[in-house]
Amino acid sequence: MTSSTDFKQEPHNIPGPIEVADEVLYANAHPSMSHVSPDFIPVFGDCIRLMREVLFTKDAQPFLISGSGTLGWDQVAANLVEPGENALVLHSGYFGDSFADCLSTYGAAAEQLKAPIGGTVPLDQLASALKSKSYKVVTFTHVDTSTGVLSDAKAIAETVRSVSPNTLVVMDAVCSVASEEIRFDDWDLDVVLTASQKGLGAPPGLSILLASQRAMGVWKERAAKGVKEGSYYASWGKWLPIMKAYEEGRAAYFATPPVNLIYAFKASLDLITGKASSNLPSLEERFKLHRQASQRIKSAATALGLKQLPLKPAEAANGMTAIYFPPNVTAADLLPRLVKKGVVIAGGLHVDIKDKYFRIGHMGISVVEQSRQDVDTVIRSLGESLQEIKEAKGITA
Amino acid sequence: MTSSTDFKQEPHNIPGPIEVADEVLYANAHPSMSHVSPDFIPVFGDCIRLMREVLFTKDAQPFLISGSGTLGWDQVAANLVEPGENALVLHSGYFGDSFADCLSTYGAAAEQLKAPIGGTVPLDQLASALKSKSYKVVTFTHVDTSTGVLSDAKAIAETVRSVSPNTLVVMDAVCSVASEEIRFDDWDLDVVLTASQKGLGAPPGLSILLASQRAMGVWKERAAKGVKEGSYYASWGKWLPIMKAYEEGRAAYFATPPVNLIYAFKASLDLITGKASSNLPSLEERFKLHRQASQRIKSAATALGLKQLPLKPAEAANGMTAIYFPPNVTAADLLPRLVKKGVVIAGGLHVDIKDKYFRIGHMGISVVEQSRQDVDTVIRSLGESLQEIKEAKGITA
Repeated sequence: MTSSTDFKQEPHNIPGPIEVADEVLYANAHPSMSHVSPDFIPVFGDCIRLMREVLFTKDAQPFLISGSGTLGWDQVAANLVEPGENALVLHSGYFGDSFADCLSTYGAAAEQLKAPIGGTVPLDQLASALKSKSYKVVTFTHVDTSTGVLSDAKAIAETVRSVSPNTLVVMDAVCSVASEEIRFDDWDLDVVLTASQKGLGAPPGLSILLASQRAMGVWKERAAKGVKEGSYYASWGKWLPIMKAYEEGRAAYFATPPVNLIYAFKASLDLITGKASSNLPSLEERFKLHRQASQRIKSAATALGLKQLPLKPAEAANGMTAIYFPPNVTAADLLPRLVKKGVVIAGGLHVDIKDKYFRIGHMGISVVEQSRQDVDTVIRSLGESLQEIKEAKGITA
Repeated sequence: MTSSTDFKQEPHNIPGPIEVADEVLYANAHPSMSHVSPDFIPVFGDCIRLMREVLFTKDAQPFLISGSGTLGWDQVAANLVEPGENALVLHSGYFGDSFADCLSTYGAAAEQLKAPIGGTVPLDQLASALKSKSYKVVTFTHVDTSTGVLSDAKAIAETVRSVSPNTLVVMDAVCSVASEEIRFDDWDLDVVLTASQKGLGAPPGLSILLASQRAMGVWKERAAKGVKEGSYYASWGKWLPIMKAYEEGRAAYFATPPVNLIYAFKASLDLITGKASSNLPSLEERFKLHRQASQRIKSAATALGLKQLPLKPAEAANGMTAIYFPPNVTAADLLPRLVKKGVVIAGGLHVDIKDKYFRIGHMGISVVEQSRQDVDTVIRSLGESLQEIKEAKGITA
């Protein structure tokens, strides 16, 4: 048995769970509170309100539910898509396959448009598919954590709206909320789903989803027709009254919320939205800091002769970087050398090229708290490690 | 907006989320770790192993999933009961209705045998129902948090096994694991489902379920027949390889586990099973401490002339007490007076009698850490408050 009190600090730059601010860890150790306590109710209410602020939406309906980001897929599949209806999944990596699998589980006819590895689905292909038949939803992954590919959310939403105005636009933004700019209302999105442990800077354990009033209308029509929801735990019919109650300052019960994590999430949202102190960057400045850090790492990788997964620079995420190993270099060569320098990064995840690339996360405090010098450390350690490997293997540049 | 760093300590005796040990809060503030880190893997593995120890089972399969206790119902409904199959729910309070609702959502034909408020379903009624038709599962709530009624799990399992040997025995033990003795193998149970925030003494956010090898066999047969699972997030097909991997010391990914909460849960399991120190009570001693504390509170309530919800003393939970208000006394009279004395308890939950009773939780550290004197404080405050109310209202004894 391991001793859980023997804590080992492990600084890391993986694309989630990311390192979180001390204020967030402190809040996660909040003494136990009742989920119906007058002290807890406004904290939960604030988290609901602040998520609208982070996504620049006036009236989308947030759902904050105990669970991982994956639970967001179940919410979409079980509440919005009726059995037999068509769903179109734009595939830019591992998470497209999984979302399609989830949609099928609840009876949707899910089809995928697959981009080549490192690419996105061309908009004209999307438009053609939408003309060929009626789709209830189009889903896409804003940043696919397996490839680091960033999709153009605004352009995808525009294309869907112009060809098939009633099709709901669903964005898996697990790896992009608070590290990429997302304009929920301006871009006319219908669902943005995410989780607590990436750009939102809290420990894992919270599924976060915002649904447009258009999406809520579709859900209500379904209920009016008597089509049952496909899930109990992910049922909006169960959760909507709870979210409304806490936002209005009342307690309500369906299932116990993760009280401590809600305190931690609130602490992180206060940092992200600048509520916690007057010295904090605005949301816009935060996005800029992510773009700058990303650019530094990507330029350094290019200078080292490394090739990135995203085929186009404009389609590369700002919160993570996915890089191919150079010829004759493997994960076993590079990752342990980085660990020795105090840098923990992640291996590959995309099943077709799992062993051929690695991933660096640069979201949240590793980017915003510049005094940590995380970006410098990553860049320097990567260069030194590759040089060591060349020397050890006798590779000439 | 509330300030999340302005913590208010709120000692309470509600039936969950219960107060947790300092070691557990400390572990919940563990620095962020990767879910595939070599340091985290054995911690998760230990939690899986320790849950078998807590439930006295040799080979039941644990599932530890980010979510609330409610997610355990979805696991049963979506993995074990095929659409159209019969499910029999023994109703001893609020949570019977909810479990039946969940089973119906996934297509089961769910029927309830309802006990009167404060009672349990007589075993001969259960036997008759089992003879009348074929049920895939019988479910019951070990301790219904809405009534404080304790069901006789051993006798229910024996009855099911003698009349209908292939029917799976499913126990909702959210409010009983680690406060009531449960002998998974000896009693021949098939599913025990629970959550982290009650007797298990950790913050909320973890759904915990153990399935017998008989139940796993039924699930495998279903898969072999090609009957799809009804849920994606609650799919055992997705989670089983993950649980096996972590138990074997390997990382695997389906959805990100609640890493910090797993550290906290491990800290609590170390306390509960006596691993954390040689001075800790054994599991058996822990159950005895719960019985003793419960007896003290229940005797005191009786001495104060108060009537409890459970109709028979042998069917009253040992981790909580549900008590009717005396005539002419309301929640608005009693609860604020208790709060002034530093005692936070819970109101009613059972929809038919919501305003007529209150609930006291006595699980975990409030019982085991006797130096806290929680039980004394609750008893003294209850007596004093009732006396104050009598005097204020001019009620003569």
